[in-house]
Amino acid sequence: MRIAVDAMGGDHAPHELVKGAVQAASDLDGVEIILVGDRARVDAELSRYVCVNGRITIEHAAQVIEMHEPPAAAVRCKPDASVVVAGELVRSSAADAMVALGHTGAAMVVAAMRLGRIEGISRPTIASPLPGRNGHMVLLDAGATVDCEPHNLVQFAVMGAIYAERILGVPAPRVGLFSIGEESTKGNDLVKATFPLLRAAGLHFVGNVDGKDIFRGAADVIVCDGFVGNAILKVAEGVGEMILDAIPDAATRGALAKRLDYSEYGGAPLLGVRGVCIIGHGRSRAKAVANAIRVAKVAVEQGMVRHIHDALSTRGLCAQAH
Amino acid sequence: MRIAVDAMGGDHAPHELVKGAVQAASDLDGVEIILVGDRARVDAELSRYVCVNGRITIEHAAQVIEMHEPPAAAVRCKPDASVVVAGELVRSSAADAMVALGHTGAAMVVAAMRLGRIEGISRPTIASPLPGRNGHMVLLDAGATVDCEPHNLVQFAVMGAIYAERILGVPAPRVGLFSIGEESTKGNDLVKATFPLLRAAGLHFVGNVDGKDIFRGAADVIVCDGFVGNAILKVAEGVGEMILDAIPDAATRGALAKRLDYSEYGGAPLLGVRGVCIIGHGRSRAKAVANAIRVAKVAVEQGMVRHIHDALSTRGLCAQAH
Repeated sequence: MRIAVDAMGGDHAPHELVKGAVQAASDLDGVEIILVGDRARVDAELSRYVCVNGRITIEHAAQVIEMHEPPAAAVRCKPDASVVVAGELVRSSAADAMVALGHTGAAMVVAAMRLGRIEGISRPTIASPLPGRNGHMVLLDAGATVDCEPHNLVQFAVMGAIYAERILGVPAPRVGLFSIGEESTKGNDLVKATFPLLRAAGLHFVGNVDGKDIFRGAADVIVCDGFVGNAILKVAEGVGEMILDAIPDAATRGALAKRLDYSEYGGAPLLGVRGVCIIGHGRSRAKAVANAIRVAKVAVEQGMVRHIHDALSTRGLCAQAH
Repeated sequence: MRIAVDAMGGDHAPHELVKGAVQAASDLDGVEIILVGDRARVDAELSRYVCVNGRITIEHAAQVIEMHEPPAAAVRCKPDASVVVAGELVRSSAADAMVALGHTGAAMVVAAMRLGRIEGISRPTIASPLPGRNGHMVLLDAGATVDCEPHNLVQFAVMGAIYAERILGVPAPRVGLFSIGEESTKGNDLVKATFPLLRAAGLHFVGNVDGKDIFRGAADVIVCDGFVGNAILKVAEGVGEMILDAIPDAATRGALAKRLDYSEYGGAPLLGVRGVCIIGHGRSRAKAVANAIRVAKVAVEQGMVRHIHDALSTRGLCAQAH
């Protein structure tokens, strides 16, 4: 299996990307990693490691999309950008999956253009890990689709449940609809219209869950629109940061920081596209990179894309129905 | 000045309500408190305090609205409920303000029906305190109006700025529009449509603020729709709870819990109605009750309702304009 990694994406590229790839290559059996980026710079980093066993290769890409660039325009104007070349490798079947940690918007545009959407999916979604009391949960959408219709949320729920079950190994994942109260009458218009659809979607639907419930482990998969999902993730990070900074004891602070650290959980898959695309924080370090590559491997092995396609067809939840 | 307090609202009524009222009566000059509720039960609590100086009276109300009751129906069916009687005291000018900690929905219905909306206000809003790094900020809407139009958010911003300046004493409060990124192009349709209106609203508008920015003190007043606002508050509480529970040292845990505790900040005003109505957590204890009464006092003294009316008229932001 070959996984293309955008080696130039994020705040610590290519150093941490290469380091993470080397770690993944040594940890994961049967994975060949293609580092996509400036050959000279990536090679300089790679040469620091004595033993990569020929399982890491470099694919040259002359351009880089910077964090501040508007995604669609940048992808159009920079056909030789590392993230674009990584997507092209998957499109042409030269790679089985892509990992892009850095410019999420650019990675989404590349995935949409190069991989295309799974038949029947109207909007893609980012399934983000969210730390909870008992391990982590899956939150989606984490920001791919900010304005949603009820049928988008239903598709997110189905995709999230498949991801949780097949890739994270959660049996019969409990799906919760994020709202501002548990009662089915609580919520905004979107949530109220989505509730009955989710109940009929053939999932293990546990009803509405609110911002306190989710951190108590009320659901394995939490569904919301991309605006709310991104808000939840950033508020959780912001509050965590504020509280950690106020803890005087360094050891306690360190232990808690580790528990809340996203890099412990790996990257977030972009679901709904015809290929495996794992995205993540621009500030990812080697550990998060290695985790993202591991997630990509499992998603390919488990046939995640096919399962999503089948689940939507079976349930009659394809976009054409709407 | 007379402040009507629903003595039967919340999880610890009437015990903590009476205790908080006694504390407020002793702390605040010129305030007479009317405890509204079952006379026998309230009197039994009140008789435990030797010296209330005649500044606390009881107004009998035979009924109580329970937390699980649907607000509109409960207010209609229970005309003698404590929260309804408290609202009636304000409507008839027998009291200058009402404090209702418990059933937020019922308090809102009472305020809307008994006090009415300020001329030009299309939707009321709850301005909630939110703990931050450097003291607390004001978040609105905290859940009064879950589905909003851009002009609702602009009215919330104006009301929040007046509340922060006049009642909390923040000079020229910085107003931020909650979004999922700082750039003016980030956000959902609602946020994008609201941004230019806020820029033109004659406020100290600092642009978009995200879930991490707000806890770093990027704004004094944070504006969003009631669904997102309520989500932010509950996520912040949920994350705080989760982290606190994981801190082994009891002293550290206690100090942080105090800092995150809502009761330190007082109640949340319902803004946009023709009278002062302070609402709050159903689990409020005496300290939160006393704080809420203090907020009510300042709001009356400062002529909050008149300032909101004037500010909207001056800016031409009344609902008729839309």
